[in-house]
Amino acid sequence: MNKPLFQSPGDKKKLESTVELTPRFDSNGLITAVVTDYESGELLMVAHMNDEALARTIETGQSHFWSRSRQELWHKGSTSGTTQQVHEIRTDCDQDAIWLKVSVSGANATCHTGMPGCFYRRIEIAGGKTRLVRDAIDPLFDPAEIYGNKT
Amino acid sequence: MNKPLFQSPGDKKKLESTVELTPRFDSNGLITAVVTDYESGELLMVAHMNDEALARTIETGQSHFWSRSRQELWHKGSTSGTTQQVHEIRTDCDQDAIWLKVSVSGANATCHTGMPGCFYRRIEIAGGKTRLVRDAIDPLFDPAEIYGNKT
Repeated sequence: MNKPLFQSPGDKKKLESTVELTPRFDSNGLITAVVTDYESGELLMVAHMNDEALARTIETGQSHFWSRSRQELWHKGSTSGTTQQVHEIRTDCDQDAIWLKVSVSGANATCHTGMPGCFYRRIEIAGGKTRLVRDAIDPLFDPAEIYGNKT
Repeated sequence: MNKPLFQSPGDKKKLESTVELTPRFDSNGLITAVVTDYESGELLMVAHMNDEALARTIETGQSHFWSRSRQELWHKGSTSGTTQQVHEIRTDCDQDAIWLKVSVSGANATCHTGMPGCFYRRIEIAGGKTRLVRDAIDPLFDPAEIYGNKT
């Protein structure tokens, strides 16, 4: 792509007050994206977007990310059917993060493990030691059935 | 610090199912931290932690981050009085993000602009163009009074 998809950010004060979307991508060209459930408010996942993923999300109304592991544009749910319909998009004070409020299609499982969200483990702290405690919920789909060998 | 503060992460399958906290810091030694209000569930801010910030958060029960702009450990609220008491910490499937559920002391404003949260602007999309629409809320403090020239 030759033409930049978004205008360049200004200085910190301008970023905080401007009415223009001027996302501040990092040195890898990425911005953090936080996804919550539109109705429950629950945190579903944290991912990253490059300029194209953000532009496609705005154009289509469905979440697109940049997969850092596969190094490709990632239309969330294109394999599993759990696409995300975007109800609202926000950005933060210095425009280096994006917040998507979404509803999820299909099995309503956002995580590739089949769990409703990716944050299914609480960090328990006792006696200076930590342990991850998993939510007492069964996965909503079997990852092997959905993704085969892709996970 | 000579001794690593956390154990090294295993492979993807292990990360998803282990009961051990083995955070996956990126090439800059950072992990993404998402902070929500414990009661309302509202997204307050997105920041980053290095190993020390995460360890200090676990030890003290107050949010600590790594300030990328100042390149220093950041005890959130130490200047403004808006410290964050951590009620719950979670991590995600591949342990490259941390979710803090907090209550905020003082003026109950998380953002350095004085706004309750950092995501005070919605991206409005109309006719293929974007515009940021600010929440109709006044800042809860005057940044100049709190930070002086530090902002």
